[in-house]
Parts: sequence; C-alpha cells; structure tokens
Amino acid sequence: MQEQIDQQWMQHALQLARHGLGLTSPNPPVGAVIVQGNHIIGEGYHEIAGEAHAERRAIADAYERGNANLLPGSTIYVTLEPCSSVGRTGACTEAIIHERIGRVVYGSTDPDMRHQGRADGVLKAAGISVCPGVLKEPCDRFLRSWFHAVMTGRPWVTAKVATTLDGRMTRRQKFWLSGVDTLRYAHQLRLESDAILIGGNTLRTDDPALTIRTPLQVPSLRKKQPWRIVLTENLLSLPPMAKLFTDEHHKRTLVWENVTDLRVLLNELYTRYGIVNLMLECGGRLLRRFLEEGLVNEWMQSISPMIGAGPDYVVPGEFLPQEFIFQREELTECGRDIIIRGTLG
Amino acid sequence: MQEQIDQQWMQHALQLARHGLGLTSPNPPVGAVIVQGNHIIGEGYHEIAGEAHAERRAIADAYERGNANLLPGSTIYVTLEPCSSVGRTGACTEAIIHERIGRVVYGSTDPDMRHQGRADGVLKAAGISVCPGVLKEPCDRFLRSWFHAVMTGRPWVTAKVATTLDGRMTRRQKFWLSGVDTLRYAHQLRLESDAILIGGNTLRTDDPALTIRTPLQVPSLRKKQPWRIVLTENLLSLPPMAKLFTDEHHKRTLVWENVTDLRVLLNELYTRYGIVNLMLECGGRLLRRFLEEGLVNEWMQSISPMIGAGPDYVVPGEFLPQEFIFQREELTECGRDIIIRGTLG
Repeated sequence: MQEQIDQQWMQHALQLARHGLGLTSPNPPVGAVIVQGNHIIGEGYHEIAGEAHAERRAIADAYERGNANLLPGSTIYVTLEPCSSVGRTGACTEAIIHERIGRVVYGSTDPDMRHQGRADGVLKAAGISVCPGVLKEPCDRFLRSWFHAVMTGRPWVTAKVATTLDGRMTRRQKFWLSGVDTLRYAHQLRLESDAILIGGNTLRTDDPALTIRTPLQVPSLRKKQPWRIVLTENLLSLPPMAKLFTDEHHKRTLVWENVTDLRVLLNELYTRYGIVNLMLECGGRLLRRFLEEGLVNEWMQSISPMIGAGPDYVVPGEFLPQEFIFQREELTECGRDIIIRGTLG
Repeated sequence: MQEQIDQQWMQHALQLARHGLGLTSPNPPVGAVIVQGNHIIGEGYHEIAGEAHAERRAIADAYERGNANLLPGSTIYVTLEPCSSVGRTGACTEAIIHERIGRVVYGSTDPDMRHQGRADGVLKAAGISVCPGVLKEPCDRFLRSWFHAVMTGRPWVTAKVATTLDGRMTRRQKFWLSGVDTLRYAHQLRLESDAILIGGNTLRTDDPALTIRTPLQVPSLRKKQPWRIVLTENLLSLPPMAKLFTDEHHKRTLVWENVTDLRVLLNELYTRYGIVNLMLECGGRLLRRFLEEGLVNEWMQSISPMIGAGPDYVVPGEFLPQEFIFQREELTECGRDIIIRGTLG
C-alpha cells in the first residue's frame, strides 16, 4: 500500500523532472515533490545548472504556498539521490535536515564518486527515514545520458539519421527527404540536446542553421541554443558567411580542425562545455567514424517512403569492421515516414 | 438500412473469398453467400481454376444443406461480377437464372472484355434485380493483383526484401538477417504467391528451397508448390544438385537463360503458366532491373535491427534513374524486426 503511494508520487516527481530535459546540463534533470497527509505541499524541478536543485525548489515552493509549517514530518520524493556534497548551491541533505522533513524517498542513486548512496547515512544520522530505489528503473532510464557522461566523461551520443527505404541519405535534385512531421520531431530532439555536431561537408553543402524552430513544447524560455559543433579537415574550406558563423547564435558555434581522436574531443565537450547530450546530424562518412569507434549510444532513424532516391548511403563503404545490434525502443508512424529509435549495443 | 445489410453480407462473401487466396490463379479468388430472410442458405468460394466458381459452389452448398427450396427469390452476394460467358464451367449468370435467385449483389466489376458489367443486362432481362458496386473498394483492392494481370497481361510483382537499418541485404559470416517471426511472415506470403523468382547468384550462394514451410494458416491442402523461377546468365553455372532441381517439387522449377526483356518474360509467365502473383526473392542486382523497368507493384521490406551488417545493398549502384515513391499500407512489429509493406508509384 505504502509502496503504491510511493510509486505514485515518484511518478509525479518524474513528470516534474521532464520539464528540465535539455536545460540542466552538465547537471541532471531532477524533479521533487513534498507530500504531507497525501497532499502536495511543494514541488519543483532543477532547471539551470548553478541554480537551486529540485529539492530546494520544492522547499521554496512550500514556503511560497504558505505551507512552511507543514514541512516538518513531511515526505520528499526526489528522482535522484539528494546531493550530500556542497556544490555551487549547498548540499540538499542539509536543506532537508534543516526543514525537519521526516522521510526521503528517491529513485536513482547518484553515480558521482562523492555520492553513491552517501545521502542515506547523512540523513539517517539526522533521524530521517530513507527509502532509496523507488521506480529506480524508469528514473535510471530517464537519467541514462547523464549517468553515461558522469561515468565515461563523454556525452551520450545520439545519431540522427534520415534515410530512404534502401538506406540512402540524400535525394537527387536536393528534394527534402523527410516529411514535415518528421522535421517537427527532429526539432523536438534538438530541444533535448546540448549540442549538435556536423561535418564540414554538411556545412558547405546544406548551410544548416541547426536552431530550434519548433513552436511546440518549448520546455522553457530559458533553453539555450544548443552548441553547434563543426568538425572539418580544413578550416579555410568553410564558407565564412555560413549561417553558423553569422546568425544571432554565432557565439554558440564551435569548430575543430583535423580531430584525430574523437574520444578526446568528446571528453572536452563534456568537461569544458558541460555537454551531456550530443546529437550527430552529420553525413555518412563522419557518422561511420563515430560508429567504428563505438561512440554512438542511441540511434534515431527516420525512413522515408522512397527507393533509389540518391547516391549517399547512411554508412558508406564496404561494411563496418563491427556489426552493431540495435535495441528498438520506439517505432512511430510520422506522417508518410516512420521513425525508429533505440540504443546500439 | 438495406445498404447496411448488403454491406454486411458482402463482408462475409469477402471473408469467404480470402480462403481462395493463392489457390485460384489464373482465376481470381471469389466468395459468394446466398441469403434468404437474413439467413445464410448457402455459401462458397472459388478454389481451383477449372472447378466450380463461387456462385455455383454456393448453390451446391444450398442443395447440400437441404435449402434448394429457399433459392427462388433469395439474394446472392458475390465479390465479383458473375461471369456471363461460357468458360470451362458454364456461365454463372445461367445458374443464377436457373435457380430463380431474385437479387444479385456484387462488389467488383469484371475487367475482362467479355464481361465489364455485361452480367447486369443478362440478369435484368431474366427479371433479376442487380445491385453492383457494394463494397467496391475493398473488393477491388482484394482483387488488384488479378485486375493488374488481366489488364496488362503480366503478373502483379511483389518484391520481398530483407535489410538492416542501413539498407544492407546480407550479414557477414552468413548469419540470418531476419528473425523467426519475419521468416514465418515470409512463408505466409509464399502461400499467396503463384511463383517465386530468384537469380542464379542466389541459387548458387544460398541453395534455397523456396517451399512453403509454415504450419500456420495453410488455406487448403490443395495449395500447389509455387513455381520456382530462376533467371541466369549462364545455365551451365547452376549447380545440378541444387534443391530446386532435385527435391520433390523439382517439376515446379523453371529456368530462363539470358532474359533480355523482362516484360516478355512476365507476359509468358501469365499467359502460359497462369501466374498472377509473382514474388521476387532475388538479390539487389536483379531487383534493380525489375525496378528500373517499372515492373515492381508491391514492396515488402523487413528491417532487422543491425547497422553495418554486410556488403550488399538492397539496390546497388549509384542510384536508380528514376525515384520510386512508396505508399505505405502496413507497418508491423515482427519480433525484433519491423515489416513495411505497400505499393510503388
């Protein structure tokens, strides 16, 4: 019974966490709800790194609602183990202890070396009851890109690929490959990304803007333009008047020349730029390099209803030295196209 | 009200017609049900060319059920215009008139020059009420391969293709590409085919049996082994001990050497062998020839969850001179694979 109630509130906290998707890097998106007598007295989610964590926002919300007196003895549900180390904003365990919250229920354990369940001891020492691992699986899954970044020091890499039925990435005469519904879906993906990576060839051929142009479901006006990353073999070959260098977001464009080690680059993207979610929108040649190095975590392919449409294959060349097995997580009809999404093993 | 009743019985006739799928070529699969006082008094479907048509089987069924006395004034629902010409089995209009059936409701109009609605006049002249075009669209759709064959003199060609996500048709080391559910689905397709076509290269590489091995949904024990057609550039290059030449069905194997005009071949397959539904299970090179000639009507592709799996692309070469637009009619999750099916425009 209590287990079901806990799961229900954790589900609510997870919903709150989703509002932070695409906003919080290098921090994880986290949601928290404080409950007293089976009523919400405060709730919140982490929005921007450097600002209050979800727990502190939920406590502040309780104050704003005039519920401060209900905090002692209440239960806080939070999707991720509360931090017990002092970061930019003070340990959340301290705030919980300070407000005399009676019980802490959380989903995922923080993989950061400084945490890893350490909150349990800190809270219990203050007489607070702790219940870890509620809805652990969906919480872990929701945070998987962040887990990956914390544990490997590299962003979670999602390859976004648009092909015809026979695996070609372009059409003749530069017609659009994807239908409008698929383009809208792709913009939604950009909302959840911290950076979008292309090659110099795509820049020269398509002159893309790589901006978020969907009017739908913008999670927050505080969403920054994702970083636009260009890998090129020759800096001077890039047209200086390209959109990426001249539009209002030109300061969000980064260029690397002759990257020899993609792992080093990815590590720099994470440690220096805080990029947790990286989306590849590059052509087949560069994509192949990422695949060959085993650096692609997620695969999102839209398949458009054409055969024999253009010269370029999604992964050109004879074959990869290694075959990748795809775990499908999603299959969607998207207008005339279909979208397949999953992870690579 | 009568319209709804008519549609309901026509739906039933269409269900009956489906039992004949894959059995009736060069005739169409047709179903018929005879109704008196809103009860079925007889029903049937056409099973084998040269035997009774659906209308005559439904009448015979009424006799067998002891309902002969109920035939006068009854209504017969038949998915296709009753034949009014004397073929191998006598015109069905004659049998209907002979039994003094009162009303004929049919779905599709027979495109054969000798028919094309001619039944209406014949029946009306005998005082029988005629209602054509009930559920015309599903009836036409069900008969589209036969319509195509009658009107063009060539079989309806379905390309069956199995690929990885990146459009390759083979894996390294000869692992199976498709999962077990997809293989079962493919055998079901063979049940509906009159012939399966491969190239010499597939014969030499895979030594396929091209038999129907599914234990599921065999429509009739009278289903023949589909013709197995091999196109080769060099007859002597084919291994004489291949399954197609030595198994129990070896008389159902046909070989053509150096076919220069696929249209001529297809016309021969229809006129000489009565093949209405032809399935291509060939490799990319031969498939490309059929595509280039605009001879592929239907496309069934299973996509397996792998990337970079093998050297062969579904349609090899730079690109087709003409792009084909696919109209999706079906999208199915089939185990770990997905199946997309539709027509080519």
